[in-house]
Amino acid sequence: MTDVQSNHESGKAPLLSEATLFRMSRYLNVLEEFMQGGVERVSTRKLADLLNVNPAVVKQDFLPLNVRGQTGVGYAVPELLTAIREVFLARSPFHFAIVGFGNIGQALANYISFERQGFKLRAIFDINPKLHNYSVRGVPVFDIDKIPIMCRECCVEIGVICTPASTAQEIANLLVAGDVRGIWNFAPTELIVPSEVILVHEHLTRGLLTLSYHIGQRHDMERTCQEYSSLSENK
Amino acid sequence: MTDVQSNHESGKAPLLSEATLFRMSRYLNVLEEFMQGGVERVSTRKLADLLNVNPAVVKQDFLPLNVRGQTGVGYAVPELLTAIREVFLARSPFHFAIVGFGNIGQALANYISFERQGFKLRAIFDINPKLHNYSVRGVPVFDIDKIPIMCRECCVEIGVICTPASTAQEIANLLVAGDVRGIWNFAPTELIVPSEVILVHEHLTRGLLTLSYHIGQRHDMERTCQEYSSLSENK
Repeated sequence: MTDVQSNHESGKAPLLSEATLFRMSRYLNVLEEFMQGGVERVSTRKLADLLNVNPAVVKQDFLPLNVRGQTGVGYAVPELLTAIREVFLARSPFHFAIVGFGNIGQALANYISFERQGFKLRAIFDINPKLHNYSVRGVPVFDIDKIPIMCRECCVEIGVICTPASTAQEIANLLVAGDVRGIWNFAPTELIVPSEVILVHEHLTRGLLTLSYHIGQRHDMERTCQEYSSLSENK
Repeated sequence: MTDVQSNHESGKAPLLSEATLFRMSRYLNVLEEFMQGGVERVSTRKLADLLNVNPAVVKQDFLPLNVRGQTGVGYAVPELLTAIREVFLARSPFHFAIVGFGNIGQALANYISFERQGFKLRAIFDINPKLHNYSVRGVPVFDIDKIPIMCRECCVEIGVICTPASTAQEIANLLVAGDVRGIWNFAPTELIVPSEVILVHEHLTRGLLTLSYHIGQRHDMERTCQEYSSLSENK
């Protein structure tokens, strides 16, 4: 689950809402799968069904892309994919760095899908000296005091914080000193960063919390139905 | 980033929007940190500042909680925390299982915050026979053909899919056969599940995609400013 903290003013490109942006990233996944499977055309309805949204929403989302679908034939998959990639990755590859080489940091460092999408891991940082001889696919692990200099040297635009909550603010400050433009925060804490730095929160517990909330809701609903039917039976 | 796929009808408890739900999980984190730090009271403004939202939004969010704040003193942290926990975890502990013991699966299995929040890992599944003697804090790794029987036996309500996209639908079918009520999907693919099963998508690339989109937007805006000032200078 992601929360974006960004005070936008109107720029040159069309500004998409967070909800549209979320759907765009799902279209991207679906279209990449279609490409790999050799699917050449896709209809609005097919995409709407896959994402469980109204076809009118899909049509609305594609308006700023300047890609034309043909009635009865749909969109050309490669053209649509290129247009959506352009939305996200106009200036790719994006360089990123991971701070904190625990479970989450290691999982992200080994997540090769990032590279396919246009993101290049340039550096890893950890406080533990035992990890400083380690590297992941040629990317070395440095001490955290190297964050500002290495981020500037490797043109790191996005810093990913995978440390405990207690050190996350200190790490955010070091990343800001390293001139990163965005921070992706996995630490379960709020952070204070300058307004020009974009902050995306990714708290893993929220996925489970969202599910438990919805499951609880369903449970309540079922109980109401049962109570209602037992009331009816007793009449 | 999470997308929830759930066709709700009105139940007994108040139905919160996804945006409110996201903020609720952030309040939960913040309040837990306050509790650990011995902070007894918190004001609407402090919470609003931390989450970078309007204080009116915080007040609106807390209306259904039936927790009263005092003017000039704020809310009692323990009371507010209990009320928010109740929203998510009315029937905790929730039992969950992880399918796919690669990097993401291992990171989630070792993420102890889940337990603190009321989620109990009951089983892990992987296709690789070499992993079937392995266990994480007493939770064993089983073969995937055991998913239906073990999920039912351990009353697993939430299945977490951490497999490649190519096998995710097969795993989802096995979880549904095991009577799970919700699926948390880390595989970068859309899934088809019965309408009574709640589906939450968590595609990790979306965090980076969202950041690169916003950084691209800022870049366009800055370029527009530069173009404007060079135009002014040439006049």
